[in-house]
Amino acid sequence: MQAIGRKHWAIAEGYIPSESSFSDRALISHETACILNVGDDVAHVVITVFFADREPVGPYRVTVAPRRTLHLRFNDLKDPAPVPRDTDFSSVFEADVPIIVQHTRLDSRRAEVALMSTTAYAEA
Amino acid sequence: MQAIGRKHWAIAEGYIPSESSFSDRALISHETACILNVGDDVAHVVITVFFADREPVGPYRVTVAPRRTLHLRFNDLKDPAPVPRDTDFSSVFEADVPIIVQHTRLDSRRAEVALMSTTAYAEA
Amino acid sequence: MQAIGRKHWAIAEGYIPSESSFSDRALISHETACILNVGDDVAHVVITVFFADREPVGPYRVTVAPRRTLHLRFNDLKDPAPVPRDTDFSSVFEADVPIIVQHTRLDSRRAEVALMSTTAYAEA
Amino acid sequence: MQAIGRKHWAIAEGYIPSESSFSDRALISHETACILNVGDDVAHVVITVFFADREPVGPYRVTVAPRRTLHLRFNDLKDPAPVPRDTDFSSVFEADVPIIVQHTRLDSRRAEVALMSTTAYAEA
Repeated sequence: MQAIGRKHWAIAEGYIPSESSFSDRALISHETACILNVGDDVAHVVITVFFADREPVGPYRVTVAPRRTLHLRFNDLKDPAPVPRDTDFSSVFEADVPIIVQHTRLDSRRAEVALMSTTAYAEA
Repeated sequence: MQAIGRKHWAIAEGYIPSESSFSDRALISHETACILNVGDDVAHVVITVFFADREPVGPYRVTVAPRRTLHLRFNDLKDPAPVPRDTDFSSVFEADVPIIVQHTRLDSRRAEVALMSTTAYAEA
Repeated sequence: MQAIGRKHWAIAEGYIPSESSFSDRALISHETACILNVGDDVAHVVITVFFADREPVGPYRVTVAPRRTLHLRFNDLKDPAPVPRDTDFSSVFEADVPIIVQHTRLDSRRAEVALMSTTAYAEA
Repeated sequence: MQAIGRKHWAIAEGYIPSESSFSDRALISHETACILNVGDDVAHVVITVFFADREPVGPYRVTVAPRRTLHLRFNDLKDPAPVPRDTDFSSVFEADVPIIVQHTRLDSRRAEVALMSTTAYAEA
């Protein structure tokens, strides 16, 4: 398969609601970056999280194995620090091989689910 | 009409909820790739589905007739294997003529409907 | 203001639900192409609608005045033919000056509202 | 970190519902432009708002500090004029340094929340 993707990505939106109407993992309010590595080499991805009123936090380091996808929840990031809830943020992704990044939020603060998704902003 | 589109597309997000609050096809939870072929030649599209923890599955082969659109549900893919429910995946599309791909999910796990959509990631 | 936009756009997704839980225009299920003309010349836009199983329908002709936006509902298209409800479609936009196109659906088949939106696919 | 972003952005969609089912700020119906400035210089951003039937309004001027994100609600814009509710609009962003812009709407006209989001249209 032809290599596909870019090495630099940004998601300007970011917000993890602290509330959820459900307790099972699938329906808890979450913010996700879906990271696809189509290639035959491991993708080493460095994530930096930006805020409105303080310095960025990072690097968060994740790896995506060759020919694998990682649906990474910002909720699960712990090192160097958890991503605060109910707080505006943005994120930037830098990879050593081409990847594709898509942003999705599931918001279950109310009894029904709301969804949004977009292909992230990419640069070579 | 001027040819329009690209030959390589990727959707990093992918997830088919196994639950639905409704039984009619329009409102069953589904994950769709809308594939538009504006040109005058048949589009032969090869789809590969990527997972978090195992090798990709494919090729899934679909054709889109000249000047036609195909709103393809991942739910309906059967050969070489159905796409598992409640499982994170991604997909890559390779066509022999330019196409346009847009990703949409309808989630009806709860009694109301949630929607999301995005133009997929494209390369020449 | 610097000219901004492209002359060719495509929306691979398209579906107008025939049902709505509400009767006021704002909350009736609708499919919209938001067309922005930042420039100082009238934009003449030709829209073609594509289907799964028959020839495209068009041209639909709309104009967007200089420095104006048109949030065009596919529901409102009449000439040469209305866009059928509950039917998969796609659309292509060709303009004589640069424009920006964004796709939005409001789905109110159920008692609550679902939304989706994406910047359309663009070519020069 | 490598500079990332573009200086010109457009959001063709725009609509602030006047109704909300909730009174706390997080759940009031709102339209947002998330603006990320990854770089080391202040971003001076000039926003122009376009309408269907009258001249554009602006400039709205905002700044985004180095390495910061601003989730700007159109609801909060006041100078030179508030953005009218229940009115179709579009917006254009011009910055003096590269930024990334993502558009999000939260619609709580009904008792549940609807969301949509997309990376905005970008030019160099």
